[in-house]
Amino acid sequence: MRWRDGQIDQSPDELVVEEPLEIRVRGRPISVTMRTPGHDDELAVGFLLTENVVTSAADILKISACERNEEGNLLNVQLAPEVAVDFDKLTRHVFASSSCGLCGKATIDAVAQNFPAVTSQVEFSATLIASLPQRMRSSQATFERTGGLHAAAIFDEHGQMLVLREDVGRHNAVDKVLGHAVLHGWLPLDRHILLVSGRSSFEIMQKSLAASLPVVAAVSAPSSLAVEFAQRNGQTLVGFVRDNRMNIYAHAHRIR
Amino acid sequence: MRWRDGQIDQSPDELVVEEPLEIRVRGRPISVTMRTPGHDDELAVGFLLTENVVTSAADILKISACERNEEGNLLNVQLAPEVAVDFDKLTRHVFASSSCGLCGKATIDAVAQNFPAVTSQVEFSATLIASLPQRMRSSQATFERTGGLHAAAIFDEHGQMLVLREDVGRHNAVDKVLGHAVLHGWLPLDRHILLVSGRSSFEIMQKSLAASLPVVAAVSAPSSLAVEFAQRNGQTLVGFVRDNRMNIYAHAHRIR
Repeated sequence: MRWRDGQIDQSPDELVVEEPLEIRVRGRPISVTMRTPGHDDELAVGFLLTENVVTSAADILKISACERNEEGNLLNVQLAPEVAVDFDKLTRHVFASSSCGLCGKATIDAVAQNFPAVTSQVEFSATLIASLPQRMRSSQATFERTGGLHAAAIFDEHGQMLVLREDVGRHNAVDKVLGHAVLHGWLPLDRHILLVSGRSSFEIMQKSLAASLPVVAAVSAPSSLAVEFAQRNGQTLVGFVRDNRMNIYAHAHRIR
Repeated sequence: MRWRDGQIDQSPDELVVEEPLEIRVRGRPISVTMRTPGHDDELAVGFLLTENVVTSAADILKISACERNEEGNLLNVQLAPEVAVDFDKLTRHVFASSSCGLCGKATIDAVAQNFPAVTSQVEFSATLIASLPQRMRSSQATFERTGGLHAAAIFDEHGQMLVLREDVGRHNAVDKVLGHAVLHGWLPLDRHILLVSGRSSFEIMQKSLAASLPVVAAVSAPSSLAVEFAQRNGQTLVGFVRDNRMNIYAHAHRIR
């Protein structure tokens, strides 16, 4: 649903695909990353290069998708026998999967927490939401100086900005505003909006759900998994909030 | 060093600060994240909220920086005794620190790999580097449709684009082009340039060093740690490559 200057129309939108990939070496899971499917073999090899495990193509015998994983989100890398793997060192990036040994479903289930879906009946005017990025931007001291920061802010139902934080990491900026809310006893944030300066991803949606946030608005695009997550968990997801327009990807009933 | 339309001047530039933070709960490290210092207590609490460990301020007795860590990059969170912590579940994000128990230095040392510094004597003209983002952008099929992707590309010394990959994750896009290079036997990439569509961080620099890349160029800003890393490891780091201008942050001798 596209809103521009008070006019609404509906049309299909293309989303960048986000899905988890679990990489296994010698049968052991060494990494789960949220990635865009495609060139997964290159992703696995590049990861192993930069983790100082492989140095050339000769170190890799075979890369194959796990057949029992229909989504193609599990990759087995077969290394040459002489390649030494320091699994303890690798585990600094390990996602200790709670997988039962079956491929596939366990991956995303292990990534997901189990927070209750949002049921808040709060509503916001589209005009109010469209005004939020400008309010956040005018308070972003560090971005103006360095151009190097993500921002996250929490607004109440009157459009009042309650807290703004900036960080090199998008997830950190969100953690900081949520942590601020916890420390001030504001939870649940069930009549509030989270605004992020960049894109919205699975991780941002899950973090916002932990605080029961009914609306997440982002200045840029959402990923496919962000939209699915919002639809499933009762959250209103808005993207491309800029220049007096926005796209509404899930639960538009909260937008007047 | 600022280059614009062939003119050069030098002036101080403000960088966004990037440093590692290790969060400990009940004495155990549960997370290391690269973050911008400030509001670290909020970051820790927000992280624990979104990991489903705490739900209110009453769950947290005290948050204190480790006194033996002069940089302030280690935080101890004291939880109320009744708060149950599932450390096994938490370890899906754990950075299994190789710390010997002393605070501080172990953190960033554990993050760092030990790749040799770059010594390549290759040179590139500033005009060539300034032309690269346009070449990459014109090949970015998915970004144009979704607005939701990071891109990374490797160029040779004549400005020829050898491989381009797009991904929701910036580090994944870099892993994919590096993995492609490994699989094609191109390493070391010591006469090449890595171009990334967004910002440059510690992680991007370390990944590029794994492939011996002498030049990293980014369309947006670098972090403080990216610049320090480049200076220390002999890499030329260029930022804000756009509109026929760029800033050179480290080892400008490779730019003609």
